[in-house]
Amino acid sequence: MQKIMTAMIPARLGSKRIPKKNIRYMGEKPLIQYPIDLAKSSKRFSDIWVTTESEELGKIIEKMGASFHKRSSELATDTATNREFTYDFLKAHKCDYVIMINPTSPLLRQETMNHFLDYVQEHNFDTVLSVIIEKEEIFFKGQPLNFSYDKKVNSQMLEPIETICWALTAWKRETFLKLQQENINPVFGGTIGRFSIPKDESCDLDTLEDWNIAEGILNSRMNKFEERYIEL
Amino acid sequence: MQKIMTAMIPARLGSKRIPKKNIRYMGEKPLIQYPIDLAKSSKRFSDIWVTTESEELGKIIEKMGASFHKRSSELATDTATNREFTYDFLKAHKCDYVIMINPTSPLLRQETMNHFLDYVQEHNFDTVLSVIIEKEEIFFKGQPLNFSYDKKVNSQMLEPIETICWALTAWKRETFLKLQQENINPVFGGTIGRFSIPKDESCDLDTLEDWNIAEGILNSRMNKFEERYIEL
Repeated sequence: MQKIMTAMIPARLGSKRIPKKNIRYMGEKPLIQYPIDLAKSSKRFSDIWVTTESEELGKIIEKMGASFHKRSSELATDTATNREFTYDFLKAHKCDYVIMINPTSPLLRQETMNHFLDYVQEHNFDTVLSVIIEKEEIFFKGQPLNFSYDKKVNSQMLEPIETICWALTAWKRETFLKLQQENINPVFGGTIGRFSIPKDESCDLDTLEDWNIAEGILNSRMNKFEERYIEL
Repeated sequence: MQKIMTAMIPARLGSKRIPKKNIRYMGEKPLIQYPIDLAKSSKRFSDIWVTTESEELGKIIEKMGASFHKRSSELATDTATNREFTYDFLKAHKCDYVIMINPTSPLLRQETMNHFLDYVQEHNFDTVLSVIIEKEEIFFKGQPLNFSYDKKVNSQMLEPIETICWALTAWKRETFLKLQQENINPVFGGTIGRFSIPKDESCDLDTLEDWNIAEGILNSRMNKFEERYIEL
């Protein structure tokens, strides 16, 4: 049976380190428009909601074709967590799964999102996290985690690590509500699926430097640089 | 006492997945020129050597102001390791430390390289590795490594992992030669220092996609994009 999926895009107007980042243009579109366009183009969602404390931002996203879920201002502080605002959202909206699409992932490709949604449809996890798989030599607490000092091996031979990137997260509504009511953390609730997304589709947007990197990557996708070599 | 440091820049002409990448222009300079320029500008090296199997590349790097260490062709295959070609290099060149500068790190900043060299000078490690520090939720072998399902915490609270990035590596010559002769892996030999470099200065250049990302980041540093917002 087809699962009913609702998109939830958390957005604040009052971002600290990159002021008003959600309405700032990255390349040809404002940041907040990327997840809205991805969600619309996927044609898999019953509804597409942006949750924000800002009435002004609410009007903008409605023009972009998403619905406006007004977040109470105590859920829009720097310390408000996924857990709190997702619970607030899920109490108000019926669905089988909520898919949180992070607006700080403008590099996410349509194809990747669609595969993620297929994965949620085809399995029956309570939580699906998006992860980046990396095969590099890692130290943890000062000690080698996945390699040995005895031998340098090709990185393809290393045991990978998976980093949660929060670009896309799926939660089964029923489980999330139940666990929260039982005072159990629902963010990593129930059975957990991990879905791998390509490294170049994930980014942080915490600092201005992060912003410039993401904009540079986006730019490099759109404008291939000229291919030039030293003449031998 | 000032330690004598020699720069070793490993370069092949016969790269597979990005053909001739070392002589390909990234932005305004060919890739191989980035580490040469960094090494020259640091003014800390007794010598700056590029090790390559290619006579043609050898001539080019000499014009750029580096010296040419001819690598035997059996040390220029895809399977030749750091261990082999560094040993070959160190047998031929006297110094206290060899600093391997990876040409696949065009994003490395001068300041970072200089701090790395200070670190090598001020300590007495046998090996110094460059690492990227990351504070993200990590899975290892399918299990949470540095977080707990019980609680979602701010990423700043997470135990970091350190990923070896191979942008810069220092080896004490004496130790390296001794361990290799004893058939002990010298790549992670003796006492090991870890030097953290900023995340946006490290990159892979294995695939064309990696290349485009790096070129995009470089481009974003040189050309600030216009700062535009949606009008409220």
